[in-house]
Amino acid sequence: MWTKASQPQVFAARRARLSSRLRGPALLVAGLSRPRNFQHNRFPFRAESHFLYLVGRSIEGAALLIHPKGATLFAPPADPEAELWTGPMPSLTDWSNELGLEVRPIEELQGAENIAALPPQDLDCALWLSELLDRDLEPGGGEELQGADAELAESMIALRLSHDDAAVAQLKEAAAVTHRAHLAGMRATRPELREASIRAAMEAEIIAAGCATAYGSIVTVHGEVLHNERHDGVLTKADLLLADVGAETPEGFAGDVTRTWPVSGRFSGTQREAYEVVLAAQLAAIAKVAPGVRYLDVHRAAGLAMVEGLIGLGILRGSAADLYARGAAALFFPHGVGHLLGLDVHDMEDLGDRAGYAPGRSRAEAPGDRYLRLDRDLAPGMCVTIEPGFYQIPRILARAEEVGELESALDRAVLARFADVRGIRIEDDVLVTPTGYEVLSAAVPKSVDDVQHVMV
Amino acid sequence: MWTKASQPQVFAARRARLSSRLRGPALLVAGLSRPRNFQHNRFPFRAESHFLYLVGRSIEGAALLIHPKGATLFAPPADPEAELWTGPMPSLTDWSNELGLEVRPIEELQGAENIAALPPQDLDCALWLSELLDRDLEPGGGEELQGADAELAESMIALRLSHDDAAVAQLKEAAAVTHRAHLAGMRATRPELREASIRAAMEAEIIAAGCATAYGSIVTVHGEVLHNERHDGVLTKADLLLADVGAETPEGFAGDVTRTWPVSGRFSGTQREAYEVVLAAQLAAIAKVAPGVRYLDVHRAAGLAMVEGLIGLGILRGSAADLYARGAAALFFPHGVGHLLGLDVHDMEDLGDRAGYAPGRSRAEAPGDRYLRLDRDLAPGMCVTIEPGFYQIPRILARAEEVGELESALDRAVLARFADVRGIRIEDDVLVTPTGYEVLSAAVPKSVDDVQHVMV
Repeated sequence: MWTKASQPQVFAARRARLSSRLRGPALLVAGLSRPRNFQHNRFPFRAESHFLYLVGRSIEGAALLIHPKGATLFAPPADPEAELWTGPMPSLTDWSNELGLEVRPIEELQGAENIAALPPQDLDCALWLSELLDRDLEPGGGEELQGADAELAESMIALRLSHDDAAVAQLKEAAAVTHRAHLAGMRATRPELREASIRAAMEAEIIAAGCATAYGSIVTVHGEVLHNERHDGVLTKADLLLADVGAETPEGFAGDVTRTWPVSGRFSGTQREAYEVVLAAQLAAIAKVAPGVRYLDVHRAAGLAMVEGLIGLGILRGSAADLYARGAAALFFPHGVGHLLGLDVHDMEDLGDRAGYAPGRSRAEAPGDRYLRLDRDLAPGMCVTIEPGFYQIPRILARAEEVGELESALDRAVLARFADVRGIRIEDDVLVTPTGYEVLSAAVPKSVDDVQHVMV
Repeated sequence: MWTKASQPQVFAARRARLSSRLRGPALLVAGLSRPRNFQHNRFPFRAESHFLYLVGRSIEGAALLIHPKGATLFAPPADPEAELWTGPMPSLTDWSNELGLEVRPIEELQGAENIAALPPQDLDCALWLSELLDRDLEPGGGEELQGADAELAESMIALRLSHDDAAVAQLKEAAAVTHRAHLAGMRATRPELREASIRAAMEAEIIAAGCATAYGSIVTVHGEVLHNERHDGVLTKADLLLADVGAETPEGFAGDVTRTWPVSGRFSGTQREAYEVVLAAQLAAIAKVAPGVRYLDVHRAAGLAMVEGLIGLGILRGSAADLYARGAAALFFPHGVGHLLGLDVHDMEDLGDRAGYAPGRSRAEAPGDRYLRLDRDLAPGMCVTIEPGFYQIPRILARAEEVGELESALDRAVLARFADVRGIRIEDDVLVTPTGYEVLSAAVPKSVDDVQHVMV
């Protein structure tokens, strides 16, 4: 498959919406590519998301100047000397025709004053932006923004929180490629292979579709390591494999899906039981998604369902409400149930918690809640992930100070029977609709039967 | 396959060799990872090559202090809070035991003075290094280095120019994975597919082996665009596909191989004729490789052979020596015949031309020579690429000021018959041995018959 591009009018409409919110000029930069091991060997350039939202193309070194009455793109003119290496590059006129936008040489922007901007993501970009705007800008999150910069951030958040039709189409494209990657991963799984082989099969689908990985792929038989970056483990037939892998379209929109499947192709009895508990928790959380619902309550619904499921398995003893209130969910599910999804896999996290947390809200202290990246009231057009998990993490379960008085509610003998379940996560991408929700990644096999069917 | 790691003694021996050359202390930093679209979504960390050469592990934020009598690794202690996300990380003691080296917390290194260093590769790293050493360091090449910094650069160059046994073993591992990638690419090629599909098949082999791509893969039916970064072209059965793809081992050593093959699986008559000319030029250049030979002469041997071949095809008319002297090779082969290969795909290019050009030598002015990245006398243990090509580049061939008086030597009618040959490059990785050379990538199919045989 090959992803479909948005029409130029999409970006014109977004620029017009931003213009109408601005009281003065603002500059959104594409940014600069990052060197890998030397200056001429660079990571693939990926423009900053605010720029991509408004322009749709990763034009390195370009900057969009936007103000209440319109917008101008400033871009580096094509270098004739470089043409030998790059082939013919678009001229500024070509860009102008393609994008339906005034385009001028970036040199004309030097030393502009009184222009709002958002935080650059590295020092090279910060230095460049500081020169462009003739004031000091430092890389960082969005909490410290002041005045027009803060207003610009709030305007961008207002626009990007509510995905327009083109953004939804892009998210669906990303989900479709991500679907293919997970199918390929399930089908490639066999005992004796390394985790890297499954990662390769999954990422090959993403590369073949002209996409990038939206984030570092997690493909591991040690799912209890939440952000496991290793891929050297060898799969054995008793293992579950956890794969958290998502595609990013060329316009920058992300998919973010996790599935967990048995290396043998068949869940063991205990693996199936634990999997069904996580799945029930995920479905309970998804069922809560609707306009007006506070995301913290979606998170808590998942946690409560997890506790209920663990009581059903005999791992926990007591009343679900009481155990949940005492933090029992966090023993096995210590992370947040999800986050915003859009142009970034954690959408707008470049602005810190400003996008994820509604004004007046901040991170909770409770162990089960402190890592939650999102606490807004859901609204139509928002896209979130829903990704509860069950993990046996030694750093939690083997430490008396973490388990605390929940020890008496924990049946260690029953838990020991689940030794072949180190980590399970099930994650989907969920769009809030006017009447409820739509699971954008619904095609990715999820039930025990569907997963086993694909792996046959 | 899975690449083999070097033994810790390898790095100890390299550190001892560097120590013996130093007159004072020097600091080699691993560097810092680069953010992709926000702070928590980063490109995979890849330590700077000098650090990898001496330590062998990509330890982010670490720095090796080395002096005439020994070495100490300063590293960030494992963060217990991060363990929830990363799993148990090696302690400084674990690193010390694994590496056979004194390891201390990085904090103990703040504000050290009078320590030599090499240029950092981005501003974030430059700022960090400036703080560590209490002096201003700017990112850049190696030409401007002074005093102890310049001596350190020369010492590193002296060591890294001549690959030790472990480095050669790593280069062979990289070549072996690269071999698998090219076989996969040839086998995956079919008309109607996009270039990205072939790239995916090739990179999947690299990922599955636990390696990274050593540089941005070039996989294109427009081989005449020398550094083509696009992969959206659709393969037609009349096309040649050019693939310049190489693996990098986890210790950082690179493969760099180019092959060009027919999408249909069979070279057309003209494609075969042009291919044989490039192959003859490549073999002529490889045959020149031996200790004491000046690399510029290898480059010139390739160019002269190209001209001879093009005369044979009737594309050029005249005497080979005369036409070569007048720059005829550069009409179709405008780049250098190769470069150093090692821990970087252009080895030590972070030091500018200091590594590639012997003292007293600098870039030539002639169109065919100016892009040559290497002009040293070859010596045993050096590894170079040999990669001539034939390209019909409109920016050269369609411009009277580029062709100049060579127009009269050019048979445009004959050239027009080669319209189905836009770009061919054939590249191998060649180790200089005491008696001549060894082609590390010799297993990758190269003759017309071998390529066609793989594609059947």
